[in-house]
Formats: sequence, structure tokens, C-alpha cells
Amino acid sequence: MSFKIYLSGEIHSDWREKITQGVKDCGLDVDIKSPVTNHEASDDCGEKILGSETEAFWKDHKAAKINSIRIRKYIEDADVVVVRFGNQYKQWNAAFDAGYAAALGKSIITLHDEELTHALKEVDASAVAVCSSPEQVVEILSYTLK
Amino acid sequence: MSFKIYLSGEIHSDWREKITQGVKDCGLDVDIKSPVTNHEASDDCGEKILGSETEAFWKDHKAAKINSIRIRKYIEDADVVVVRFGNQYKQWNAAFDAGYAAALGKSIITLHDEELTHALKEVDASAVAVCSSPEQVVEILSYTLK
Amino acid sequence: MSFKIYLSGEIHSDWREKITQGVKDCGLDVDIKSPVTNHEASDDCGEKILGSETEAFWKDHKAAKINSIRIRKYIEDADVVVVRFGNQYKQWNAAFDAGYAAALGKSIITLHDEELTHALKEVDASAVAVCSSPEQVVEILSYTLK
Amino acid sequence: MSFKIYLSGEIHSDWREKITQGVKDCGLDVDIKSPVTNHEASDDCGEKILGSETEAFWKDHKAAKINSIRIRKYIEDADVVVVRFGNQYKQWNAAFDAGYAAALGKSIITLHDEELTHALKEVDASAVAVCSSPEQVVEILSYTLK
Amino acid sequence: MSFKIYLSGEIHSDWREKITQGVKDCGLDVDIKSPVTNHEASDDCGEKILGSETEAFWKDHKAAKINSIRIRKYIEDADVVVVRFGNQYKQWNAAFDAGYAAALGKSIITLHDEELTHALKEVDASAVAVCSSPEQVVEILSYTLK
Amino acid sequence: MSFKIYLSGEIHSDWREKITQGVKDCGLDVDIKSPVTNHEASDDCGEKILGSETEAFWKDHKAAKINSIRIRKYIEDADVVVVRFGNQYKQWNAAFDAGYAAALGKSIITLHDEELTHALKEVDASAVAVCSSPEQVVEILSYTLK
Amino acid sequence: MSFKIYLSGEIHSDWREKITQGVKDCGLDVDIKSPVTNHEASDDCGEKILGSETEAFWKDHKAAKINSIRIRKYIEDADVVVVRFGNQYKQWNAAFDAGYAAALGKSIITLHDEELTHALKEVDASAVAVCSSPEQVVEILSYTLK
Amino acid sequence: MSFKIYLSGEIHSDWREKITQGVKDCGLDVDIKSPVTNHEASDDCGEKILGSETEAFWKDHKAAKINSIRIRKYIEDADVVVVRFGNQYKQWNAAFDAGYAAALGKSIITLHDEELTHALKEVDASAVAVCSSPEQVVEILSYTLK
Repeated sequence: MSFKIYLSGEIHSDWREKITQGVKDCGLDVDIKSPVTNHEASDDCGEKILGSETEAFWKDHKAAKINSIRIRKYIEDADVVVVRFGNQYKQWNAAFDAGYAAALGKSIITLHDEELTHALKEVDASAVAVCSSPEQVVEILSYTLK
Repeated sequence: MSFKIYLSGEIHSDWREKITQGVKDCGLDVDIKSPVTNHEASDDCGEKILGSETEAFWKDHKAAKINSIRIRKYIEDADVVVVRFGNQYKQWNAAFDAGYAAALGKSIITLHDEELTHALKEVDASAVAVCSSPEQVVEILSYTLK
Repeated sequence: MSFKIYLSGEIHSDWREKITQGVKDCGLDVDIKSPVTNHEASDDCGEKILGSETEAFWKDHKAAKINSIRIRKYIEDADVVVVRFGNQYKQWNAAFDAGYAAALGKSIITLHDEELTHALKEVDASAVAVCSSPEQVVEILSYTLK
Repeated sequence: MSFKIYLSGEIHSDWREKITQGVKDCGLDVDIKSPVTNHEASDDCGEKILGSETEAFWKDHKAAKINSIRIRKYIEDADVVVVRFGNQYKQWNAAFDAGYAAALGKSIITLHDEELTHALKEVDASAVAVCSSPEQVVEILSYTLK
Repeated sequence: MSFKIYLSGEIHSDWREKITQGVKDCGLDVDIKSPVTNHEASDDCGEKILGSETEAFWKDHKAAKINSIRIRKYIEDADVVVVRFGNQYKQWNAAFDAGYAAALGKSIITLHDEELTHALKEVDASAVAVCSSPEQVVEILSYTLK
Repeated sequence: MSFKIYLSGEIHSDWREKITQGVKDCGLDVDIKSPVTNHEASDDCGEKILGSETEAFWKDHKAAKINSIRIRKYIEDADVVVVRFGNQYKQWNAAFDAGYAAALGKSIITLHDEELTHALKEVDASAVAVCSSPEQVVEILSYTLK
Repeated sequence: MSFKIYLSGEIHSDWREKITQGVKDCGLDVDIKSPVTNHEASDDCGEKILGSETEAFWKDHKAAKINSIRIRKYIEDADVVVVRFGNQYKQWNAAFDAGYAAALGKSIITLHDEELTHALKEVDASAVAVCSSPEQVVEILSYTLK
Repeated sequence: MSFKIYLSGEIHSDWREKITQGVKDCGLDVDIKSPVTNHEASDDCGEKILGSETEAFWKDHKAAKINSIRIRKYIEDADVVVVRFGNQYKQWNAAFDAGYAAALGKSIITLHDEELTHALKEVDASAVAVCSSPEQVVEILSYTLK
């Protein structure tokens, strides 16, 4: 029975690839899931599948609802939820996922630069570890599963 | 048995006062709770009560943990969680609260300007109503409780 | 501590009034709740409070979401959920409420004419009693609380 | 670990076959379940197995209870519940299943013609997607699992 | 906030009156509930309210379902469930109530003569106390609430 | 993923073997579990493993607690709990198991002779089917899984 | 609706009195509960009420079970569980209560001297605050409820 | 589907090896998990992975949080939690694990010398068996799974 990991948050850097490669290099028995990380596909899925909207709000609404199928399934299944915040963008969905995972009692690992420490204090307070590099996340998983 | 409302999020405008006054004017049987909205008190409570820290991270950590007592209690008790996002600041704690409330199955009302629609699409998708003014929040509560 | 009753379903006959009057006549310590039963108000609340829509679907969507605040709160609080089906209309919301209540483990009482027996067999199978008159509902509550 | 899908509702058209074939054509790792869709077998199972009844009500009751074993098991196991409403018949069991699934926090996809939009507004409001063709359901699953 | 007590089981001796009088004499802040203890009323409520049946099974079924409204409500609300077994009769409903209460994590007190010890070993194993007199039950409540 | 069945109750007739053989003959994908059905082993396990007792009560207590490990595990895992009552003995553990299963929302099938109908009315009221022969249980499972 | 506080642990110093007096002096709306803190009464309640035992183990067992009625009720009701460890004694019941409260998602405050930091690291890691004086506990409650 | 066992507590004797070898000798289908039992690795993991701390408290805090990922996962997955107390050390983490497991409704087996009986009475009262040797634990598992 593998540990199940969900990688939530930032989609503009290669942190998911680094963690995925790292756990592979360590030979860990983990099952890693992510949201759809293709930004355009994620934004457009509602209109593309269910038809176009005249209001931007409803375009976004339909897309976010469809994306929630995958996100909720994988967070609910996860043993560990890793939430990454980049230095740019608001990434409210990442903080939302963290809150969702916290209420479900999941073990949360946050991953962000030190400059975000104060802004993320409530999110970090719900975490079992606050990392500044993907390598640290891999080390925690490796330590946990050895 | 009053409806229990929790007001999460932005602390720099008077939206809480407007909602509180509005439901009072309507004579609604609601019980409104908020986090500690004094920014300085909220940031400093950990060091003030439990002793100073050399690391900013631990100062924040202690404060966020203490603040969580009140926040979690009132979200868990709430029938409706109103989450306000201002146009400034990252307000990750507001999105975290929304995710927490969503996982608990609470009725969520979001309150923000239209310009934040795209950035908040996942949060709005978890809401029963997306408002742009405190008056709309009051109208919803008034309609719900009439 | 009163028994909490939620009256779901048909809004075109006076069954709610009959039950309310009946339990009052019996002097029962019950707290009766209903959805908004003003058809027009219920249909229009979304547009009226949150702004008009060009698509009928979104008008309905906004209204149904706002109405869900009250419906879910009162079903979740209820000890007994009474679900009434009239002979006309599809009343899918009534069957939806029954399913929602069943999953929460509530005691369900259905109220409908005998001619609907076959069509409602799955809903009736989830009920602790299947009544054909409001008086029977009152008798059950009176027996239960004596 | 496959996505688990439950197909609830109408039994008079070939929508289940279309979805089943569609996900097969896409090579999706899903596990699709349905209720017993043989109308006569479903209606008669109670009398056939447990003995005949003089009252139609109890015939239906015994059948509905036996059918509930399968329905509840598969809804409770499901990641996604698809609920189909045809233009004919009351199909209260479909709306009941939707309510049941909603209370369990399942991702719900509804499937029906546009003319049913108003009558199904409460059910649709609980859904993550409202489809008008089996192909759209397949597209959503395909997008979700890619 | 009173301690809530549910008294399940035997209806042929005055153990309920003794416990009720005992806690009153001790001035304990408890709220005591019981099922309908009028045997005939309990057996006949289904037919009396919902109409007569030709089959004894369905007469019993309707009565048991109606009685379950009260029983489940009070067990679910209870802090302590006292389950009494007399030396006569099978009293399967008492053992059923004990199992129901055990699965909900309630504190269970059993009350029976020593000669039933072996037959009740599984029920007693789920209890926090096994009493042989109503006075012992009162003493436990008195000790617990002092 | 097999249906998981737990067979609770009477240990003096061959009903378990009949159901086990029946589902095998039907080729059903079910996983059948039972308690330890060796009466003497079940009664003596506490003293045999953990040391002898001078009081019969504690001998029984230790045995019942050890037996509960297996019973609770298999009831909690089960999709269907079959509870058999023979015409002799009090079998309070069977009724206790039924109550436990009911509170967990399991599908319950009871199996007993018609002469026990009145005494078992509360237990039967919690069941999805009341059978008088092992063959009927097999037929229900066969119908459910076809 | 008062905040509900449970005070678990050490019974040999006056920390409960200090907290109780402190919150009273601050005029806080809290409802404070404790276990039975009379050591002898707590140890002897099983034998005293239910009869003497020849084995010390069963004397302790009966007492601990009776004490669990009160302890579990008040922990389950609590919003905040304060767990005090003195420098002497093993106080495994305090750590047990902390684990119990943690699994229920309660806000935990620990109270102990700094010399116990390493031995209590797992317990402290589950806490929202680690205090070294009753005054700090009062300050946290006062801050939380202001 | 194996029985899942978690071995919590003392790390200074070979009880885990004895149980592991014992169940292997019996050919039992069990899946045994433990915390990280390398004392130094367990104490140092926080600083080693996430950076050094000037305060011992935070060093311990970071380590305990990381260790909690594994501990909570395996307790939550477990069917049986075995908790071992040695005669030395305070082992508050073992009692904490027992409380955590108790609140989750796990079957708990304690393992300790008779001299600890009084100090562990609350923990033992939550257990289905109190053993004094690893062989007894193996016998219980062997009996349960035969």
C-alpha cells in the first residue's frame, strides 16, 4: 500500500518534476497526483466541454467545478498534501486546498521561500513541515518511508 | 436557535460593521463571530503571552496557533461562513478558511470585487453565493431567515 | 429540547398549515421549519439579490444555491424530515431532500396519495412511515413525543 | 486505483452504453457501476425471492429494500455519480440518489435535456457539471483522468 | 447542560422509576428519556395510525419503524445509555439498542442479574459498568456528576 | 472489488456452510467472514491466552473483548451483514451485532423462522431483507451482484 | 454559548484553581470541567459502587471505566482541552487524554515545566500552545474570547 | 486483505522483533508497521532535514511533527494498535498514541509488566486485551485470524 501524495499549487516552476524524480531516485513506494497543470486547459475546460458563456464569471465557474472533481478526489485520498506557493500570483486555490486538507486532518507540507513566511503563517501553522526546497520534501518522504 | 455566521478575511475596511449593522436593522436572529481583527494584537499574541522568539518564523507560528483556537471554533460552529477578499494583500488565511469551511460542508458566501473573479474561481466555485457588497450579504441572510 | 421537524416538498396545498396546527393543538414541543414556500420569491431570489442573468440556467442556479442555505441547515438540524409529494409536478427537489436526509440518517416520513406508491417506492423504502394525510403525521409525532 | 463511477437514473435509453463505450474508447481507468436496469427484475425481486404479497405497497417495499443494497454500496464507493433524467416519467429514485450522493460529498454530474433545467434546478445546483449528452460526460471524465 | 440518559430494555419491572426517583433524590442535573413503555401502545401504533394489516409481520414492521423515531433520537442524544435485561423474555431490542449505542461510542451501563452474565458477555464487554441494581446505576451517575 | 459479507449469530446449525456453498455455486465475487464459531474456543480464549480468573464474570469479559477484535473488524468492513437467529438460546450477541451494524449504516439481512417475527420486530425493521432460509440469502446476493 | 474547557492531568497542585479564578477575574464566558480530582474517590469508585475485587487489576479496571464516563463526555464537549503534566509521576492518563483530544480535533493547550520539553515533544506537537504557568493559559483564553 | 497492526511505544527491548517473528512463524496474514525506532534519527530528523534551531523546544517540535506523518498514517490505517510500556521512562508518546487510537475506535492491545497496572489503568481500560508478554500478543492475533 503506497503512500499517496498530492501536489497542490504553483504551476510555473518545475518543483513537481523535482519531487517526482527525487522520490523515484530514492525508490520510494509513493503514488503522486497533481491537478491539471496545463494552465490553458484548466481555464478552458468548462467552455470547451459544456459550451461557451457570455459572462467570464460563468466560464470560470464551469471550469473550476470540473477541475474540482480531480482535486477533491486526490486530496481526499492523500496521506500527505504538499502545497507550493511561488513568490508571484495570489494562488488562492493553493491556500484553499491547504484549508480543505487541514479540515480533513491530512498531513500537510508547505513549500515556499522564506520571504512568504509572514503572509503564510496560518497555512504554515497547519503544516507538519515547512520546506524551502523540493529536496527537503523528498527527504521528509524518504525519512518517513524508510 | 440563531443562525451562526462567521466573517472571515480582510480587516482593512468596514465590511464587518456594515453586515453587523444590516442584520441588526433587519432584526435577524443571527449570531455573528469574527477572528481577532486587531492586526497588531493578532500578530503579537504568541510572543506577548508565551515569550519572545529570535526567529520571525516561530513568532508567527506561535501567534497563528493561538489565533486558530478562535477561528476553528467559530468556523466549526457556523451555519454560514462569509469570506471577504480585498483587492490588496494576499490574504491566504481567508482562502484557507474557505477551504476549511468547504471541507466541513458549510454554506460559504464570498465577498469581493469583480476584478478578482478569475483569481478566486476555485473559492467562488465552493460558494453558495458570490457577493460584491455587504448589502447583498445582508439581503441573502434576510431572505434566508424571513 | 424540542423535536426538530423539517417539512419538505409540495407548496400548492395547505399540508404544512395542517401539521403546524395539529401539533399546536396537541401541545407538542416541536420546532417546525420549512423552505421558503413563496414560489416566486424562491425562483427570483438569485437575480433579485445578486443581479440579473441572460441565461435561464444561471438565474435558476443562483436561486437554488441561495435557497440551499436554508434547506441544508434545517435538514441537518432536523430529527424528523417530512417529505410531501403532490399528485402533480415532478418535485425533484422533494426527492432530492429525501435522499439527502436518508444519507444523514434522519427519520423520514413521506406523505402522498396511494396512487404514487409505485413511483415513490425507493423514497418510501427509506422512510420510517408512509402517510396519506397530514393528520397521520401529527398522530405519529404525538405518539412519539407523548 | 481506478476512478469509480456510478450511473443512476433513466433506464429507457442507451446512455449507459454510450458512456461505457466512450470511456473504453478513451482507454480511461474507470470502474463503472449501475443499478439493476432490467425494469421487471427490479420490480419483482422482492416477491420472487422472499414470497408474494397481497398489497402492492409491500411488494414494492420489499423490492426497493433489496435494490438498495446494490445502489447504496455503489454510490458510497463512487468518486463520481452521474444522474440521468429522461423527459418522461417522474424518476424520483434518480433525484433521491442525487440527494444521497450530495450529502456524502460526492462529485455529481447530471445529464438531461435543457427543457428540464427549471424543474431540476436544485439537483443541478448540487452538481459539478450539467451535461446534455453522454459524450460530454465522457469528455469530463477523460479530461479529469488525463 | 444536563447529562442525557436513555433507559433501554425491560418494561415489566419498576427499574425506570427507581432510577428516576434516585437521581431526583440526589438532585442530579440529568435528563432521562425512555422508549414508549406501554406494551400495547407500542405494538399497535403502526396499525392504529397508518391502517390495519393482514400480515402480522407488516403490523410489527410498521410499529417498529414508528417506535424507532423516538428510540434513535434519544440514543443519539444520550451521554449514557442504560440497558436493562430481565430474566424473562428475549429482549432482542435491548441488545440491539446496546449495539447501536456501542457503535456510536456512547457510555453504556448494563443492568441485569448475575445469572445472565454468560449470555450477556458481549453486551457487558461493551459497557463501562455492569450493575445488578438500579441503586448502583444511581450511584454511578451521582459519582459522575458530583 | 468483492462484496464483503459478515455472517453473525447462531452457531448450532449449518446455515453458514449453506450460504458459503451457495454463493460459490453461483460464482459470486464475495468475501465471507464469520466470528470464531467454535463455541468452546470462543468461551475460553481469554483464560487460555491471558491467564485464569477466579470470577466467571472476568473469564467471560476477557474472552468477549478478544473476540470483539475480529467481530468489529469484519462488521466494519462488511457491505452486507447477515444476522441469523435460531429458535433456541437468547443470542444477544447477534442482536448486538445487528444494532452495531445498523448504527454504521450497513445493509442488514436477517435470517430466522417466522415464529420469531414478533420478538425480532425491531431488528427486522433495521433490515433490508428478512429471510427464512439460507437459500433466500444466496438469491439476494446473487441478484444484487449479477 | 460559552467556550467549554476541560482541564486534564495533574491533581497535586492548585493549577485548576488558578485557572478557574483567573478566568473568573477576567469575566470570561467559559464553562470549565475537570475529572474527579479526589484521588482516593477516583481509585475506589469501582469497588465502592459495584463490589470488591480480589485482583487489583479488576479493581482498577472497574474504577477507570466508571471515571471514563465523565472524562469522555467532557473532552468530547470541549472546545479547548488543557493538559497539565507535573514533574513527578507518570500521568499516562493525561497523555492518553491528549491523544484522545487530538484525534477528535480539539484545540489542546499543554501546561508543564521546561524540563519536560523533550519527553513531551509528541504531546506538545499536537498542541496550539505550550504554557509554563496557569496565568499563560488564562491569558490565551482571555485573548481568544475578548 | 491483511490485518493491519501498528506497534507503538518502547524502543529499548526486542518486543517488536518477537511479535514480528511470532506472527511469521504462525503464518498469519498481517501487515505490521512501527514508528521510526532509531532514537537518534527520530530526535534529529527535524534539524537534519529542515535546518538547525537555537532552541531545543523547536528542534523537538520540528522532529515530532515530521514523525507524526508516519505515526498518524499507520495508526489510522491499523485494525489493531499494540502499545508497549517499558518499566523505565515516561513514554508519554505511547500513552498519547493509545488515546489517539481509542478516539478512532481501534482495537488496542497493551503490553506491560504487572507492576505498571495501577499507573496504566486508564490506558488498560481502553484496551481489548492487556498482555504481559509478546507471545500473548501473537496468540491473540493467531486466535483472531485463524
